[in-house]
Amino acid sequence: MISFENDYTKGAHPKILQRLIETNFESLSGYGTDPYCESAKNKIKSACHAPEADIYFLIGGTQTNQIVISSLLEDYEGVITPETGHPYIHEAGAIESTGHKVLALPEQNGKLIPEKLQQYLYEFYQDSNHEHMVFPGMVSISYPTEYGTLYTKKELEQLSQICGTYHIPLYLDGARLGYGLMSQESDLTLPDIAQICDVFYIGGTKVGALCGEAVVFPKNNAPKQFLTRIKRQGALLAKGRLLGLQFDTLFTDHLYEQISKHAIDMAEELKNCLKENHYSFYLESPTNQQFVILENQQLKELKKQIAFSFWKILDDTHTVVRFATSWATTKEELEQLKTILSIKQKGVFL
Amino acid sequence: MISFENDYTKGAHPKILQRLIETNFESLSGYGTDPYCESAKNKIKSACHAPEADIYFLIGGTQTNQIVISSLLEDYEGVITPETGHPYIHEAGAIESTGHKVLALPEQNGKLIPEKLQQYLYEFYQDSNHEHMVFPGMVSISYPTEYGTLYTKKELEQLSQICGTYHIPLYLDGARLGYGLMSQESDLTLPDIAQICDVFYIGGTKVGALCGEAVVFPKNNAPKQFLTRIKRQGALLAKGRLLGLQFDTLFTDHLYEQISKHAIDMAEELKNCLKENHYSFYLESPTNQQFVILENQQLKELKKQIAFSFWKILDDTHTVVRFATSWATTKEELEQLKTILSIKQKGVFL
Amino acid sequence: MISFENDYTKGAHPKILQRLIETNFESLSGYGTDPYCESAKNKIKSACHAPEADIYFLIGGTQTNQIVISSLLEDYEGVITPETGHPYIHEAGAIESTGHKVLALPEQNGKLIPEKLQQYLYEFYQDSNHEHMVFPGMVSISYPTEYGTLYTKKELEQLSQICGTYHIPLYLDGARLGYGLMSQESDLTLPDIAQICDVFYIGGTKVGALCGEAVVFPKNNAPKQFLTRIKRQGALLAKGRLLGLQFDTLFTDHLYEQISKHAIDMAEELKNCLKENHYSFYLESPTNQQFVILENQQLKELKKQIAFSFWKILDDTHTVVRFATSWATTKEELEQLKTILSIKQKGVFL
Amino acid sequence: MISFENDYTKGAHPKILQRLIETNFESLSGYGTDPYCESAKNKIKSACHAPEADIYFLIGGTQTNQIVISSLLEDYEGVITPETGHPYIHEAGAIESTGHKVLALPEQNGKLIPEKLQQYLYEFYQDSNHEHMVFPGMVSISYPTEYGTLYTKKELEQLSQICGTYHIPLYLDGARLGYGLMSQESDLTLPDIAQICDVFYIGGTKVGALCGEAVVFPKNNAPKQFLTRIKRQGALLAKGRLLGLQFDTLFTDHLYEQISKHAIDMAEELKNCLKENHYSFYLESPTNQQFVILENQQLKELKKQIAFSFWKILDDTHTVVRFATSWATTKEELEQLKTILSIKQKGVFL
Repeated sequence: MISFENDYTKGAHPKILQRLIETNFESLSGYGTDPYCESAKNKIKSACHAPEADIYFLIGGTQTNQIVISSLLEDYEGVITPETGHPYIHEAGAIESTGHKVLALPEQNGKLIPEKLQQYLYEFYQDSNHEHMVFPGMVSISYPTEYGTLYTKKELEQLSQICGTYHIPLYLDGARLGYGLMSQESDLTLPDIAQICDVFYIGGTKVGALCGEAVVFPKNNAPKQFLTRIKRQGALLAKGRLLGLQFDTLFTDHLYEQISKHAIDMAEELKNCLKENHYSFYLESPTNQQFVILENQQLKELKKQIAFSFWKILDDTHTVVRFATSWATTKEELEQLKTILSIKQKGVFL
Repeated sequence: MISFENDYTKGAHPKILQRLIETNFESLSGYGTDPYCESAKNKIKSACHAPEADIYFLIGGTQTNQIVISSLLEDYEGVITPETGHPYIHEAGAIESTGHKVLALPEQNGKLIPEKLQQYLYEFYQDSNHEHMVFPGMVSISYPTEYGTLYTKKELEQLSQICGTYHIPLYLDGARLGYGLMSQESDLTLPDIAQICDVFYIGGTKVGALCGEAVVFPKNNAPKQFLTRIKRQGALLAKGRLLGLQFDTLFTDHLYEQISKHAIDMAEELKNCLKENHYSFYLESPTNQQFVILENQQLKELKKQIAFSFWKILDDTHTVVRFATSWATTKEELEQLKTILSIKQKGVFL
Repeated sequence: MISFENDYTKGAHPKILQRLIETNFESLSGYGTDPYCESAKNKIKSACHAPEADIYFLIGGTQTNQIVISSLLEDYEGVITPETGHPYIHEAGAIESTGHKVLALPEQNGKLIPEKLQQYLYEFYQDSNHEHMVFPGMVSISYPTEYGTLYTKKELEQLSQICGTYHIPLYLDGARLGYGLMSQESDLTLPDIAQICDVFYIGGTKVGALCGEAVVFPKNNAPKQFLTRIKRQGALLAKGRLLGLQFDTLFTDHLYEQISKHAIDMAEELKNCLKENHYSFYLESPTNQQFVILENQQLKELKKQIAFSFWKILDDTHTVVRFATSWATTKEELEQLKTILSIKQKGVFL
Repeated sequence: MISFENDYTKGAHPKILQRLIETNFESLSGYGTDPYCESAKNKIKSACHAPEADIYFLIGGTQTNQIVISSLLEDYEGVITPETGHPYIHEAGAIESTGHKVLALPEQNGKLIPEKLQQYLYEFYQDSNHEHMVFPGMVSISYPTEYGTLYTKKELEQLSQICGTYHIPLYLDGARLGYGLMSQESDLTLPDIAQICDVFYIGGTKVGALCGEAVVFPKNNAPKQFLTRIKRQGALLAKGRLLGLQFDTLFTDHLYEQISKHAIDMAEELKNCLKENHYSFYLESPTNQQFVILENQQLKELKKQIAFSFWKILDDTHTVVRFATSWATTKEELEQLKTILSIKQKGVFL
């Protein structure tokens, strides 16, 4: 069985494991105060062209969204996301558990539309009952989105400008940031993101690490006592070295970019292979996640040999599924896929 | 500089790293559904003589306390701990962040006294205003305690019986469980704990793992939808294998017991060495943490060569500090300590 | 200026004020333990044909929704409402402040459609990712709805049956319950509601009281320690007599029904008057709230002489506004309205 | 049966009821936007010599503490109270329900000792683990205290100065403020309190109102969007007039002071009567609450004819009880008490 189920089915990049071994018996202080965290932060600041950045390492994506969002909102505020956003759907109410509403706006291919955001904010303050409503306190988007799509630099700047007008921060969830930045369609760089957004995170879990996300407040703008906020949410890792070492490795010699690029190359091959075999796509994704429409009988057959994810029911006879590549996808896996699909194509479904 | 600062200054037991490497490129499902989690759970059930146990892996201690406690309490209930308890003092309000009060009772050497618990519960229900007060909803203790001390089996049974009378669960925080069980003074076994307590956790972070705690509900008594509760707190690890593999390793061939025993042996040597050099102890601890009273000038001098932890101010001229051994403490480190202390003893402080 | 702004612009029914005076100097115990609370509860039980009911008095609607909903949900659950529901839009995040998501479903004229509810619940459990999502834990509807519309008995039974299948309670917000029950279109009685719903509240604030809502758990099914839950939310009134006396008065000699009927009669006259003057309605409401479409210039003119509420922007040139009658609307006010509208009609807008 | 059970056993001052009747049929806007709220605010500003004050009306004391405290704290902060403080003991976890710890300090006769506060704050920041602890974010005291005692002006200024040094606000809970200010031992005035404290509330429920507390931010320093915060906690009263009218009445012609003074006069008589009959006091209280030590058999006998409150168990044979006077205590009630006590004294207990 080959797996394109998601981008976290394998362990960590071998260089990470190697460094864990090399440093294993060093006695280091806990809670992120070790030299590897320090070094990783410096490398990230440098990669972001953000020498003033405040950087914190957290363990996973939902945790990161929960802590960043709850730290930035006032009690009476909620967070705006597109209605397909991860915090709105797939975080089991993690944001609400901190007392805040997720304000979902209509989206297009996973993206928040600047015009819709503008309209929402305008109408909110026009509504004479708005003091009885949850105030929009920040905007949270992801790059790439839940559907693998990308904001253009212009769109991101528009969102940022609207947020600026209403004095609310723009937060970018970069769980798969590398896969976005390395896409051929991306016109954004890491420094662009650091310059345009108020806060964002660089995903490790899905891009070569065992776990870990790096939160970046690019303008020395971390909320007060952020470490204590992390502790209070139960998210402060005793052996902070585990996170520091991983990001230090990923940001040495452009490893993060290289392995992200590899996933994109594999995704291009995957896409071509699917296209050649006449599969149709739910939408055009330029990143490592590909959303494919399968006839239900076809789905059942493919599942026997290939692991992929259920995405959603399209209609009575069709389902949308997701194929994902990652830093660890091998050419062999793609060859196997090609073979399977080409045999299927030749008549199994007839 | 040698370090007795705490029991999480070093990485992981080498066997854990080795297994991470061996399994690194296997494609495994996420969120704890992989075979290594399954295997680890089975080994733990077996070690606990609790075939019906529900077991979940979490990342750290504060997180575990937060999720277990908030899951077991009704909205109107709080958790009882000794007033030196970790959740009361050193979790930055993690319990309160879930809406629950920590009800601190007087303690003795870090331990909750059964009589005091009994009295508190009795008086609570006698108080005609108790409907205006936070109801005691569970008891949380740790083994060993924050002061390295141990409950006897009889004491644990007494606490359990009192909890039973008031229909509230008894939870045991085992961040350093191995160091408790392997102490020469312990008259408890893992199956005893599984039999006496309603829920407990087996600490990994401080006993050989990079991170990870195993929560055990020994009688198939996990709260409903516990996985979703974990997700909601941002604590569900995508690559659950990282936790499963570690506990699978620790519970293979009695590794957890062996490395815990090693820390206790080292602690005995440490204690002897300190005693021989006429240091006095804040209290008698039979586990891996030793609390030593230092004259402030002495503290300043020792600090130059040895890392240890500040514990608390005793009086104007004395401070309590903590020396901790761990699974990774080496004989060489102890030898170095002996040398340093013996030189100091010979007159440096004069 | 005459006011049809809402149904809480005037004080209380005179009989209530009279009884406040009569009982003012009696020394009564606090927190709802006085004989007037007791008597009111008995009268409500009787009116509901629910001798086993648990009844609690609270102060306002948002508070009641907040306490009832948060008390009935498990941590990992959310509450389903129609997307026009008060808790979703106009309670400033009161539900989310207790850690729970409001799950908004598509609606029709303010009503939750049984088929949509059924589909949502079915698909939720079909979704293989549902353990990463907020579980639907209860259904909250209002009667009448935010748009003054009414569920039929059959619809209410359907919703109840669906809830039963999924083992989640059905909660009915009766802020304007009297105005619903006294509508000519209603085929429901108070005993019907007590029989079909798991919990509901009888609104006082909008139906003749200074403040106050009576929560009814008709089958002796109040959550454990409900009084303490009320206290914990800061909602336990010291002088509980204020609430008891009001409901005791409202449920003596059918006062609640009579004054509700009066508001409906006034609403019918209001509707006729508006129709005669060729106003068009946003939707057909059989209760005390009437939603009227005004051309924006017309709105500006009318506002000079009549108080009504902004509801929503319909398009660039039209706005939906609300006219409400209440227990306190007088025939004189309606006569004044008729005069104003008839003069306007005769050409003022030209 | 005569009652000295508490200071909220009777209704409202007759002038309040009279004004409710006079204004009952005026159509007024909701949520505190009516002219009576406006007028009441102006009178309170004037009485406080605080023309810049922000004033909000809430319904009860626990609610007020909950909203004020949660609005002033950052997520990572807790509130300091004396360990006998109402929020720590008798609010059913209302503060914790908002995610914040109550940090209880040792007290003396119900009062927070400036030296202890200073020491606590100093040691907190000295503790090298303080980032793992709940930060002290504000101080909450009450005037009079839970034990009826009073801070001197000097003590209040000391507390304020310490708070200033640590940049945390000082909040004064004035549930019984009138009874404190009118005590012969008070050296504080309302303008003093407005000048020294950052926020306080003037209690209505216990001083002549049916319900209601007036929160005063004396220096135009209300938290942003305070109305929405109130709404979010379910505490925004639709018919805000009920609160406005009551405070407008209480602050007209010094009514609040007069009726408070009456309660103090009655308390002095009560105290004398108890002393003459050789009752002993738990502590010396200069306000309307008197704490008396009763032998348990004596308690049982007295209870048959007089209502008073259980306070706490003193020892196996004695109990502390509370007698309270109020704005509504009558001379007749005191005469009755005298008669009862004098008969008892003459031998009934033999």
